[in-house]
Amino acid sequence: MSLSFVEMAESLKPDLIEKKVYPTRLVEAEADSEAFQGWAVRETGSIATLRDRAFTKGDSIILDFGDHHVGRLTLSLESVDARADSPVRLKFIFGEMPCEIAEDFDEYNGWLDRSWLQDEIVNFDVLPGTYTLPRRYTFRYLKIEVLSPARKFKVAFPDIYVTTETSADVTQVPPLPDDMPEDLREMDRIAVKTLQDCMQTVFEDGPKRDRRLWIGDLRLQALANYYTFNNHDLVKRCLYLFAGLRLDGGQVGACVYEKPEPARDDIYLYDYSLFFVSTLYDYDLASEDRETVNELWPIVMEQIELSLLRLDEQGIVKDDASWYCFTDWHEKLNKQASAQAILIYCLKRGLALAERLELQAEAAAIRNHIELASEAALTHLWDERQGFFVSGEDRQISWASQVWMALAEVLDPQANAALLERLFEVNPDIRPMTPYMYHHLIEALITVGNKDKALEQMKAYWGQMARDGADTFWEVYNPEDKKNSPYGSNLINSYCHAWSCTPTYFIRKYFLQP
Amino acid sequence: MSLSFVEMAESLKPDLIEKKVYPTRLVEAEADSEAFQGWAVRETGSIATLRDRAFTKGDSIILDFGDHHVGRLTLSLESVDARADSPVRLKFIFGEMPCEIAEDFDEYNGWLDRSWLQDEIVNFDVLPGTYTLPRRYTFRYLKIEVLSPARKFKVAFPDIYVTTETSADVTQVPPLPDDMPEDLREMDRIAVKTLQDCMQTVFEDGPKRDRRLWIGDLRLQALANYYTFNNHDLVKRCLYLFAGLRLDGGQVGACVYEKPEPARDDIYLYDYSLFFVSTLYDYDLASEDRETVNELWPIVMEQIELSLLRLDEQGIVKDDASWYCFTDWHEKLNKQASAQAILIYCLKRGLALAERLELQAEAAAIRNHIELASEAALTHLWDERQGFFVSGEDRQISWASQVWMALAEVLDPQANAALLERLFEVNPDIRPMTPYMYHHLIEALITVGNKDKALEQMKAYWGQMARDGADTFWEVYNPEDKKNSPYGSNLINSYCHAWSCTPTYFIRKYFLQP
Repeated sequence: MSLSFVEMAESLKPDLIEKKVYPTRLVEAEADSEAFQGWAVRETGSIATLRDRAFTKGDSIILDFGDHHVGRLTLSLESVDARADSPVRLKFIFGEMPCEIAEDFDEYNGWLDRSWLQDEIVNFDVLPGTYTLPRRYTFRYLKIEVLSPARKFKVAFPDIYVTTETSADVTQVPPLPDDMPEDLREMDRIAVKTLQDCMQTVFEDGPKRDRRLWIGDLRLQALANYYTFNNHDLVKRCLYLFAGLRLDGGQVGACVYEKPEPARDDIYLYDYSLFFVSTLYDYDLASEDRETVNELWPIVMEQIELSLLRLDEQGIVKDDASWYCFTDWHEKLNKQASAQAILIYCLKRGLALAERLELQAEAAAIRNHIELASEAALTHLWDERQGFFVSGEDRQISWASQVWMALAEVLDPQANAALLERLFEVNPDIRPMTPYMYHHLIEALITVGNKDKALEQMKAYWGQMARDGADTFWEVYNPEDKKNSPYGSNLINSYCHAWSCTPTYFIRKYFLQP
Repeated sequence: MSLSFVEMAESLKPDLIEKKVYPTRLVEAEADSEAFQGWAVRETGSIATLRDRAFTKGDSIILDFGDHHVGRLTLSLESVDARADSPVRLKFIFGEMPCEIAEDFDEYNGWLDRSWLQDEIVNFDVLPGTYTLPRRYTFRYLKIEVLSPARKFKVAFPDIYVTTETSADVTQVPPLPDDMPEDLREMDRIAVKTLQDCMQTVFEDGPKRDRRLWIGDLRLQALANYYTFNNHDLVKRCLYLFAGLRLDGGQVGACVYEKPEPARDDIYLYDYSLFFVSTLYDYDLASEDRETVNELWPIVMEQIELSLLRLDEQGIVKDDASWYCFTDWHEKLNKQASAQAILIYCLKRGLALAERLELQAEAAAIRNHIELASEAALTHLWDERQGFFVSGEDRQISWASQVWMALAEVLDPQANAALLERLFEVNPDIRPMTPYMYHHLIEALITVGNKDKALEQMKAYWGQMARDGADTFWEVYNPEDKKNSPYGSNLINSYCHAWSCTPTYFIRKYFLQP
């Protein structure tokens, strides 16, 4: 059964669409305290001047490819002044952002392996020659440092380009109406590019890092995809991968690997396993592919049942200090209330699916669980005096808990709207840290009918990212701390990150004039 | 005409013979003042223990492949303790000799480009996986340093091997007789391996550096080849390359490149252009391929005529301070007398060829030039009082000048023998520096009938190289200064160098009992 899920997934592996893209100009990175993360990019010459230049040991150039790209680098090398009589040794540094070409990777000291940083030292034996580096890179900027030759000859770069790769077909994206305001149009463009660059043979979380299929990202990518590239097969492929690569206990894992062959990771997250339910629910709405939904329905029930096992005698998700639930990258965030809310949110989507599939018994059972979990939340997590949901032993009040409870619609509509108004008024310290959590904040505001506030928040967050120079939207963005990283270094942040692509979903779903 | 020579050469490009070779043990390089160049190699474990080990950032191993090899590295990578969740970044250092794996390439400060040193930093995206590095390496030792992972998982090397490449067919090498003394048998074995590793799609000078076809090396490789692998087509290919890629003035260049397509270099050396004559002479003797010899004969006459243009009004090769003639790697060596002798030596082989081809007019003309050049040498370069040939304005007396005059047989046989006896007695300061010059010393001793001295010198020179740990014979060897390098660093010396392969030629031509 599992094997055939993976086989089905593999049969849906898309061909990648390739496109040659040439650099547009030569630049340098300049320290500038006003610029994002302290680095401004300054043009030093047109790309045409590259043809007339020859380089020797110690020389370097930075090429700007004009936009964020994912693909393979091809370069032609020629010797100048004399025939090359020794190999040429070059260092390549690929950067999504100016910090990567300005700061020294060798001083990197973050919490993820340095090998995510995209630099290479390559020796080329034969000149003249045209070489395509074997790995895929994710970048806008390319720094080339000449380590050799130092003597008889110089090296020139008569041709250099990237062959971009994506499974996203840009011709499928519906144009926005002419009256769309420029700031939203720009936000949409960047979001679509973010999604495009993450769409490979799976929906990757980030094409620089981790280049992997996470279900938390998949869920949001799929939503954005339905309004843009509308590639149902890629969502289907990813659902089958998660279904076919469940953990030993039956849980949908948090992420899966594609290569060398599809394989599970060992990471289980409470919220992520439940998102299989909502992702299939969204897929059903978008695709009406009832065959797939029918086939995957048992996995939905399995995830629901497994998740219910974590409820304590009060019907509340058992809290613990481990990383059992993701919710957001926030060191101090307690996950209990958001986990409870996500359970309810996904139970509701499971119920809707069961009803659509006309599974009466399952629908009744799920309806009962929704009632119990919601009652438990109101009884044990709702602090009537403060007007907030609390989480964990310390009764923490966070943005994430309120946002998810609003999305789970535990309160009645009026109280739900009031909850979010109060959230903005009181502004608890434990704020959203990532575009992923901001997505849920926006969706919650729309859920309670506050589209104006949703739009204002989108403009304040993704709009500010765009003003800070985003070519694609980022994994992490804190307008108050622009070098923030959950990994100890902003160099290793992913600057094209799937979970950040949803402005296009919001704009196209909620903000197109009829 | 020239084009068709290159086309002929290309039609003779050999297929390479491949063979998988596995490492034999784990070692380390240990400082040891008694060892060659100060580095001893100590075994630290059997290769079987590698299978049980897993490595993390900062770990390194040195593999000993048991002998000198030329080929491509294949390695399998596996993750241990956890699935690899980031790329693996490894540094590879390939060494022909212990110095290369013991000393830091980053401190290299020689006069040739550092890119000849064989190190790579490679990032591997997918584990488990089997990778073949794209470049060819020349090595016995391989050091692997793990730069990443540092965190969740470790990396193991379940399989690693080199696929060796050569155009030399070892099954063609005649076995030595059973009564061959062990020291000569060993010298022959090392010499044959040296030639084998240099035999690729051309006779390379050194498979580590310069990986190029030089005619000075070709001449000696061809001689050794006729007594071992006996691959006439490879010699023929190289002769056609030199014939087809002559310099603008018609001179045979000192070296040619094969890739990306056959091309001349701009280096002209007086002696090297003349060696086209003697190399074709040797080829004719070995192959009896009269068709090739007839076709290339005009190039022989052209080289002779061009070389004669350098004679001054006294009939002596014009000296100058530039690198116009190679002879040997010796800073102080004056080349005039050796150039004169090489002219005479090659004229004599040209004459023999003309006679074999029954070209009476050409034979008569060359005979006349031999007489004039020999007379000029005796008149202007022979110092009767000292009993030596002198060279240059300062009337320098060197080993090279006497050796080459002996090979040119300018003196009568008795005086020629006496010249070499006197050379050993007086022992002028300007001594042979390379195996290339030692080859000519040995050949000269044999020419004057002193086979015992020839054997003694071979044992003292190549024999000592063998005792110093040569797996293949070296480009440079000075028993009095074992770190000697013409390039400012022993790291960049070629430790498998074509011109060092002739002990097998001497042993098999002159020292087999009938």
